[in-house]
Amino acid sequence: MVQDLRIAVVGAGRMGSDHIQRITRVVSGAYVSAIVEPDAGRAQAAAAEAPGAAVFSRIEEAIAAEAMDAVLVSTPGQFHAPVLEPALEARLPILCEKPLTQDSASSLDIVELEQRLDRPHIQVGFMRRFDDEYAQLRELVASRASGELMMVRAAHRNPDVPEQYTQNMLITDSVVHEFDVLPWVAGSRVVSVEVKYPRRNSLALSHLREPILVIMELENGVLIDLEMNVNVQFGYQVTTEAVFERGIARTGEPSGMQVWRDGRVSTTEHTGFETRFARAYDAQVQRWVDAVRDGRLVDGPNAWDGYLVALCCEAGVRALTDGGVQSVVAPERPAFYA
Amino acid sequence: MVQDLRIAVVGAGRMGSDHIQRITRVVSGAYVSAIVEPDAGRAQAAAAEAPGAAVFSRIEEAIAAEAMDAVLVSTPGQFHAPVLEPALEARLPILCEKPLTQDSASSLDIVELEQRLDRPHIQVGFMRRFDDEYAQLRELVASRASGELMMVRAAHRNPDVPEQYTQNMLITDSVVHEFDVLPWVAGSRVVSVEVKYPRRNSLALSHLREPILVIMELENGVLIDLEMNVNVQFGYQVTTEAVFERGIARTGEPSGMQVWRDGRVSTTEHTGFETRFARAYDAQVQRWVDAVRDGRLVDGPNAWDGYLVALCCEAGVRALTDGGVQSVVAPERPAFYA
Amino acid sequence: MVQDLRIAVVGAGRMGSDHIQRITRVVSGAYVSAIVEPDAGRAQAAAAEAPGAAVFSRIEEAIAAEAMDAVLVSTPGQFHAPVLEPALEARLPILCEKPLTQDSASSLDIVELEQRLDRPHIQVGFMRRFDDEYAQLRELVASRASGELMMVRAAHRNPDVPEQYTQNMLITDSVVHEFDVLPWVAGSRVVSVEVKYPRRNSLALSHLREPILVIMELENGVLIDLEMNVNVQFGYQVTTEAVFERGIARTGEPSGMQVWRDGRVSTTEHTGFETRFARAYDAQVQRWVDAVRDGRLVDGPNAWDGYLVALCCEAGVRALTDGGVQSVVAPERPAFYA
Amino acid sequence: MVQDLRIAVVGAGRMGSDHIQRITRVVSGAYVSAIVEPDAGRAQAAAAEAPGAAVFSRIEEAIAAEAMDAVLVSTPGQFHAPVLEPALEARLPILCEKPLTQDSASSLDIVELEQRLDRPHIQVGFMRRFDDEYAQLRELVASRASGELMMVRAAHRNPDVPEQYTQNMLITDSVVHEFDVLPWVAGSRVVSVEVKYPRRNSLALSHLREPILVIMELENGVLIDLEMNVNVQFGYQVTTEAVFERGIARTGEPSGMQVWRDGRVSTTEHTGFETRFARAYDAQVQRWVDAVRDGRLVDGPNAWDGYLVALCCEAGVRALTDGGVQSVVAPERPAFYA
Repeated sequence: MVQDLRIAVVGAGRMGSDHIQRITRVVSGAYVSAIVEPDAGRAQAAAAEAPGAAVFSRIEEAIAAEAMDAVLVSTPGQFHAPVLEPALEARLPILCEKPLTQDSASSLDIVELEQRLDRPHIQVGFMRRFDDEYAQLRELVASRASGELMMVRAAHRNPDVPEQYTQNMLITDSVVHEFDVLPWVAGSRVVSVEVKYPRRNSLALSHLREPILVIMELENGVLIDLEMNVNVQFGYQVTTEAVFERGIARTGEPSGMQVWRDGRVSTTEHTGFETRFARAYDAQVQRWVDAVRDGRLVDGPNAWDGYLVALCCEAGVRALTDGGVQSVVAPERPAFYA
Repeated sequence: MVQDLRIAVVGAGRMGSDHIQRITRVVSGAYVSAIVEPDAGRAQAAAAEAPGAAVFSRIEEAIAAEAMDAVLVSTPGQFHAPVLEPALEARLPILCEKPLTQDSASSLDIVELEQRLDRPHIQVGFMRRFDDEYAQLRELVASRASGELMMVRAAHRNPDVPEQYTQNMLITDSVVHEFDVLPWVAGSRVVSVEVKYPRRNSLALSHLREPILVIMELENGVLIDLEMNVNVQFGYQVTTEAVFERGIARTGEPSGMQVWRDGRVSTTEHTGFETRFARAYDAQVQRWVDAVRDGRLVDGPNAWDGYLVALCCEAGVRALTDGGVQSVVAPERPAFYA
Repeated sequence: MVQDLRIAVVGAGRMGSDHIQRITRVVSGAYVSAIVEPDAGRAQAAAAEAPGAAVFSRIEEAIAAEAMDAVLVSTPGQFHAPVLEPALEARLPILCEKPLTQDSASSLDIVELEQRLDRPHIQVGFMRRFDDEYAQLRELVASRASGELMMVRAAHRNPDVPEQYTQNMLITDSVVHEFDVLPWVAGSRVVSVEVKYPRRNSLALSHLREPILVIMELENGVLIDLEMNVNVQFGYQVTTEAVFERGIARTGEPSGMQVWRDGRVSTTEHTGFETRFARAYDAQVQRWVDAVRDGRLVDGPNAWDGYLVALCCEAGVRALTDGGVQSVVAPERPAFYA
Repeated sequence: MVQDLRIAVVGAGRMGSDHIQRITRVVSGAYVSAIVEPDAGRAQAAAAEAPGAAVFSRIEEAIAAEAMDAVLVSTPGQFHAPVLEPALEARLPILCEKPLTQDSASSLDIVELEQRLDRPHIQVGFMRRFDDEYAQLRELVASRASGELMMVRAAHRNPDVPEQYTQNMLITDSVVHEFDVLPWVAGSRVVSVEVKYPRRNSLALSHLREPILVIMELENGVLIDLEMNVNVQFGYQVTTEAVFERGIARTGEPSGMQVWRDGRVSTTEHTGFETRFARAYDAQVQRWVDAVRDGRLVDGPNAWDGYLVALCCEAGVRALTDGGVQSVVAPERPAFYA
């Protein structure tokens, strides 16, 4: 039997705990061999979910102990770089939650460091690429069965956000997903970002001015208009309507049991990303484990993709703050990341 | 300009009033020239909706006064025959609300009387034939584009019924519609009827045992299983799922504005036949008026169809009461009604 | 009986012929008493559809002959003003196909002329206001049951357009409808228009650069992003997704018989405005006839609404041609048109 | 770390191979330690999918070698009993593909044998219970939120079946699933079965008379009418419409990306049970593995459920062959299986 993959999960907060449970209970061919978490109480709670996992307070200790074959990084974004660097130096395969790092400069440092290795070792956790319907839409684009893709009309709607959610996080925490997945679907990259303000939602936190309409242009001419909405109250909804030369396609439509009652037929909507993308998260980790075990190391967005998204987020924040059409200028994708 | 059709509406109860308003406000090329209603108060109320209409207490008086070109009969079913007979003798075109008469024997008398005329003069008000989706389904059957029709799985659901609704009316007042429209869709006639009792609805009137499952066989082998339900509480719903050799078709699905709120996406269902079949009622009367004006006289179910439905209802009541598979034995359709 | 309304239809082209048939066969309480059409062949063809209608080559002749109680104007837009002026002077109620006139200056002339009368006599033929779902959406906005409206995400898609369709007609012939109906739904008026160009449809006529994304701001802060698309090939589709503070609503979703065949479940889409808005056209004319007969004269968009739309079209054409955000500056709505 | 579960897969045909891949690649906490298959070529092919698995030609050999902690039985149904008996005697937990055995008499032998153990060791592979929507429907029934369940209107449609599919297999291979899952949803057991014949599908294999309509009564009065159809050509579809006192619920409706093209909006339907119930199969095995690892042994239908289904199948075959309403007489459920 091929040996099960030993994974060190770094960061045992909400996302980290979810990943520990996923690896322990859902994913085939892997187990959590190490938990790296400086907060001792949190580390113990996490370890209870992963029988046999060793606990470390720093990644360097886990590396020194040779406690893992691969690393899953789920610390807050500003602490990604200090984990990625030693893990890369130890030549460990890495699944890094989004964003790659906190800004484009530090992301560029990471991609430069990684290029000293023989091939990409980092996969970034943009899990939407593992959602069945996004994948079907990408296939439809690539097939040209409906002609060329011309526009994407998207919506990203959250029921609400916590008090600490800031205006910039509309871009850096939320639109960040569309910056990765929609160019991937469309087969191009973002060249500009613009933000428009509709009437403000009076139910939103008082420091937020939202929803916003984000307009992105891709290098191949595709235009994206995205409604970014974090206080829709009624549920969690991520949809796209792709406009082709010969037709339309829609993803993210409600599904499941239909109930007729009280004069209406209705279907329950999602209330959070945890259920909406439950299968995408599972598939992401399973496919990453499979890729590491069979030597491919990465099966999804790589560090260069993460760097491009960081550039988009910076343009998006400028557009949010200063207005106008903000360009996204990126170097050529290195052959290393082809 | 071709003269507008002068219509006498006989019976000014709920259905009659609806028809008076329809003819006055919606239908082109006709107006209500006479109202025949023995109840003076009801007659006056109705006349207020039809400026210029003469009021009569008996059909014979209206005929004697030459007050109309055509007759719309909307008295209770047991009073249809006494209206149909003098109207036929006066050779007037007639739109008669369903049922044709209260039983098959009296219906047979009517078809025999009608056959003394040069051609059919009576149209029976089975308005479902004027519903767009039933018509589309019939075309799909006739086209054989999905192969032969094999089964129809139907549902007829009312939110509730009034206290005076009896057990037999499940058949004679409700299933009566399916006895006309489903054979028309399927291109055949009913040869047997059976009734099954599911668990009883505890919210139904105490004297009703319902819903029921009605199973009909058609001469061409098509099998129909119909859920007849008069206490669904949530709305009014009439649906069919037609099973073909190469596919399925569904009619009666909800449509209209979709609303996302409170964790659900929902569409408002109909709450009564008045809205569900509003356009079918309008189309029925408009097309009848057009047919009378251009000399065809009938454009829909004729008196023979009404007689066949009466035979089905009698078999249905036997099935409801005595159980077992009850045959529907009908003579050949006369060439007169081909 | 209240007298049927005598209507003169001015212009017997495609739209005029449709209206003649509608008034003759569908609408209650009116008939075509006069056809005004300079092309003799076209006039005769139209007259064959309206038995008893007199034929005139100029509106002035029909007025002199006292041939009508009301006027329906369906000439090409540039010929509306020369019809509206004498009709207004004759104090005739008018239903004028969109646009009111060919530009805002001439529209302003008309509204000034009309204000000499005791009250509005002109209704403009923006038929979408008579579509059930637009009306339901407007009620939902007005009720605030889902909170305030914040955005409208709309699509207006035609299967194709004829060779003579020009780039500017994207605005003046197509978006013109949204310039009327969406502010009506939202309860506000357009203050700016902007146009964005997605990837061009290679199947479009070579002189067209389309689809376009039109962004409108309303005075109340509502933001509208409209996809205007005249070569979608697959059908005719007009949809809105209205974004409220507490929910979403969608109109224009497909409905009708569902067919399962060849591995898919599908519903037929509309292929033209004639079927998509068939009932809206009928309802528009019926309600206008009813309003004229009962003395209200107008039951829908009035000439001021038509003038506002002309201003929007001019801003839209500037946005299409020159780029940038183009303001729509309008005077206060006169009390006359409140 | 808790030890991974060692599973012996008995029978390496199509279902067995699927299960081997599932356990190896999808399921967490288990691996295939043994393959029992008398056909050497088939055994080798299967072993290539499960690195490290030992191969045996008989279950007794695998037991003697202590090669597994649990057994998954996927031989043809007539060979289940000879596998179940030694496995039970070895006190091994068992997941047995449906049916439990080939008839009710041999199923009764198995439940008697199993009752000598301390508790149930056999789970039967009726995977529909692990489908999300069936589970939601069962919860809706149990909650009584829509009142009592009264009827279930079901459809089970296959695109086609192989030449060796016999008339009786309509019951024993197809309706067998509904005999398990619908009583589970309804919270009762089948007391009678009846079969009706609609018009025959001329595209079916010449020795088949289908579709059939199967009518089942449950002990609690719920009536089920099931369309069993194995030649629908267009896809694979399993749906229910549950009729409650205060509403309706539907499961199995199409979902996924919607495509507008060629005048239609469509959604791809399933073409086989492998995709329709893919997640149910995965969930079934994962939950069984979890139950075995934590000592519950069974988390799904047990051997008594399998025995009841065998009794239903026998009544169903009588109904198919002899007509009439056929009773299902079963002993009381033993406390052992409560």
